[in-house]
Parts: sequence; structure tokens; C-alpha cells
Amino acid sequence: MAYHFDCDTEAVPRAAGVHDVQITGRWQALHGAPLGSYALAAGVRALGRQMVHPEPLAVSAHFLRPVEVGPAEVRTEIVRTGRRMATGEAHVWQGGKERLRAVATFTDFAEMNGRTATFEDPPRLPPPGECVDPLAGVTMPGGMTLLDRVEFRMAGRPGWLGGAPGGTPSCDFWMRFRDGREPDALALVFLWDVMAPMVLEIGEAPSTTLEATVHIRGVPAPGWLACRVATSHVTGGLCEEDMDIWDSRGRLVAQSRQLTLLR
Amino acid sequence: MAYHFDCDTEAVPRAAGVHDVQITGRWQALHGAPLGSYALAAGVRALGRQMVHPEPLAVSAHFLRPVEVGPAEVRTEIVRTGRRMATGEAHVWQGGKERLRAVATFTDFAEMNGRTATFEDPPRLPPPGECVDPLAGVTMPGGMTLLDRVEFRMAGRPGWLGGAPGGTPSCDFWMRFRDGREPDALALVFLWDVMAPMVLEIGEAPSTTLEATVHIRGVPAPGWLACRVATSHVTGGLCEEDMDIWDSRGRLVAQSRQLTLLR
Repeated sequence: MAYHFDCDTEAVPRAAGVHDVQITGRWQALHGAPLGSYALAAGVRALGRQMVHPEPLAVSAHFLRPVEVGPAEVRTEIVRTGRRMATGEAHVWQGGKERLRAVATFTDFAEMNGRTATFEDPPRLPPPGECVDPLAGVTMPGGMTLLDRVEFRMAGRPGWLGGAPGGTPSCDFWMRFRDGREPDALALVFLWDVMAPMVLEIGEAPSTTLEATVHIRGVPAPGWLACRVATSHVTGGLCEEDMDIWDSRGRLVAQSRQLTLLR
Repeated sequence: MAYHFDCDTEAVPRAAGVHDVQITGRWQALHGAPLGSYALAAGVRALGRQMVHPEPLAVSAHFLRPVEVGPAEVRTEIVRTGRRMATGEAHVWQGGKERLRAVATFTDFAEMNGRTATFEDPPRLPPPGECVDPLAGVTMPGGMTLLDRVEFRMAGRPGWLGGAPGGTPSCDFWMRFRDGREPDALALVFLWDVMAPMVLEIGEAPSTTLEATVHIRGVPAPGWLACRVATSHVTGGLCEEDMDIWDSRGRLVAQSRQLTLLR
């Protein structure tokens, strides 16, 4: 079975370091445009074809201009190839303009056998089946096709969704692809960005992501992902949004931090 | 008066997008080599000369190979110039090998006038004059010239410094340049990396930084910087270290996150 995420991030090599990607309209968020992290995942996937190690480990991306539905070109560069790590760079272009630029280091998690020690607990959420679908019965603005791709479960519905922002810009939740595609390292390069911005809970409009870095910690087990997202500091219209993601076995599998600008 | 940090990060343009930097032996840490963030600051400073906006806002760096004392070349590229933000890229080369690569977005903080709201308090430290110098009376390994450049104050001495790791990989502390140089945005691109790795508190050796991203939130006021550093998740030998930095007026001025590999 072909899953939407795999079809829509597929990059076709055209020349050395040049790949064609079709940015579809299936991953649009609150702002009505494709999510930047969707184009990022396509770029990292194209880059990954050229890396000697299979999985993205650290991906840092600067979002330069909005991504649009339509053809895109991914230009890739191999920066360094090492025994345990390899680093490359990917630029996503559309219409003669660079839309985003990412540097990514890849590794093989099968060889990451060092110490594990945890100083922060995963979210204490009821099982997904006992949680609420926060979007059930809610009419969202049109064009948010992303909601047909990813589903969420929460202990309760966030205030902003009911028109009454709760004042605390943080949230624990479950998420997964709706079509049954299981999470993997590449999916985590995309999924950190699918939750609505936490600043909605303090009465702000969706913010614009300037930069985001995702650290993948391992290949997630199949099933729902448990997530914790929080903004701690809004300063002069800038804010960070941090997300930690655990797999269905309770292992931390990703951490993301994005710097956003309030509109 | 010329300060060490300014002298030692100075980049001399040699050609379009090529700058010469002398990496000195004055910024060496526990591993006996120049701190990666020192070379990063030199690279970002060289890039900054070509940016239309004055201050670094978001700097993401992948550390490819150790930096050495000696001449270095910074190669810079202007990626995008916008009204509020400009993005560029800097590569630091030594001996024919790329040592680190950074993408940096610049802005003018004087124009960052949006909302401020805080959901996490700054460290509750006694004033610096009532804190202890954690290094007073301690004999550190030779070659740690960094300790002649930066000084620290803490509520108490961390366990690992006395040979008894405390088990909790987090710490609040004050820091400043010893020679009286006041902090600015560029200094924050360096200072996130000067504290000893928190994994020392759980009995590990210093770790290697693979990737680091620094978000600068404003130009710090003169004086001591209040810092909070923490590692929450060690997984398979990988761990993050997050540092938040407040200025002497209690304003958050930077957040960094690095991904490190235990040795």
C-alpha cells in the first residue's frame, strides 16, 4: 500500500544533486499553505538518498519564503561522510526562489548503543482510546487538508479550539498518520510541525516559523506518538516552541525546537 | 580597549566571500582544543559583515571536525536579504578540511517590538557577589585557557568538580567575560558552549557536540548573565543540552540546544 506521506515526499533525481518533487495540496495548515516541514521532509528525503547512513539525526532548517503547491526542485550537497555520521545540505527551490535551506546529519541508529538515562517523564496521557479527538464536532477553516492526513487525541479539548484560549501555551497529546502509515525517522522530520501553534492558547494568531531544528533519537516503534509541546518565552514578538515526541513504547524519539515570529 | 573575544574572532576579508581568521589557543576547554563555539562566533561575525541587519537571531551549526589552533578560512554566502530578516551561511575551513558549517538568520532587534509574555521564571540565584566561584581552589586539567577568559558564579559547587557527581544534569549559574567585555548578540553565539557538559554530573566524560542551534532574543544589558542549563534525555549515547540565558535585567536573551554524543 502506498501512503500519502511517501508519495508526496518522493524526490525524482534529475541530475547530480538535483531532484524534482511535487508539493501537493494535501498538507495545508491553518495558514492555508503547505506546511514548511512537509517540504523539509521532501528535501531531507532527497538528501538521504546520497548519504551513506540511513537515518536523519539532526536537521536544522531556515525557512526563507512560504512553500506553494506545485513543482519544487531540491538541490543537495554532500558535506562530509564519516564512519558514524554523514552531513549534507538540501535547498528547496520553487519558481526561481529558494524556499528553505536545511543542513542535516545522518546516522545509523542500529549502532547507537550508548547509555540511556531519563530526567523527564513522558506525558501522562490516558490511552488514545480513552482520549478525545479534539477536532470532533469542530468546524475548522477550509483548506486545512493536513487534518485529513494526521489525527490527534488529547485528555481534553484545548481552550482556543472552543474560542476561549486557556492562557497556558503547552499541551500533551497523541498523534499518528490517519492512513495507517507508521512513524519512522523521516516522518519525525515532518511531524514536529503539525500541531497548531501553542500561542493560540494565549490569544495570538498562528505564527511564522523562521528556524527549526529536529533531533531524532531513534526509529520509533509502530503506533501512536505521545507528544509534549510548549512555549516558555515570548519576547518582542519572537517565541520558541519545543516539542518532545515519545513512541508507543515510551522511548523519546525526537526533540524539536522552532523559533517563530508572531504576526 | 581591545578585548580578547573581539581580537580573536576578527575576520579579515581576503576575497569576495572569503575571510581569514586566526584561531588562537585562548579558548580551549576540557578536551584541550578550541571550543567549537569560538570558531562558530568567528564565522558568524565574518558573515555578519555582509548582512544588511546587524544582529544574529538564529544560528544553527553542524560541527564536522575538531577545530585546531592556527589559521582558518571562513567562506560565506548571502542566502536571502529581506526587509526584517537576512540569512546567510558560513563554513569554517582549516588545513583543507571543513570544520563546521552554520546557517544564520540576522535581524535588527531594535525593530522587534511585539508581545512579551513569560511562562518560565529566570534562575533564582543569589547575587553574584554572594555566590561562590566554583573554580576557586580547584586544580583543573592543564590547557583549559577558556577559564582565563570566562568566569562563573554558582549557589554552590557542582558535585562533579569535587569528584562526586550529584546525579542531576542541570545547573543555574552566572557568567561573564573576565576582561570586562560586555555581552552582546555575537557573544551569545559563543557563550552557550562555555559551561562544562552537564553529563559530568552523571559520571560521564565530556561529550562531543554534533549540532547546536542558538536563538538570540535580544541584545543583552551589560553585566553578569544568568544561565540555566539542563540535559533531560540521554538516549543510546546521545543527549541534548539546553541553555537559557537571561541578562542582568532579567530578560531572556538567548536559548541554545546542542545535540551531543557521549564518548
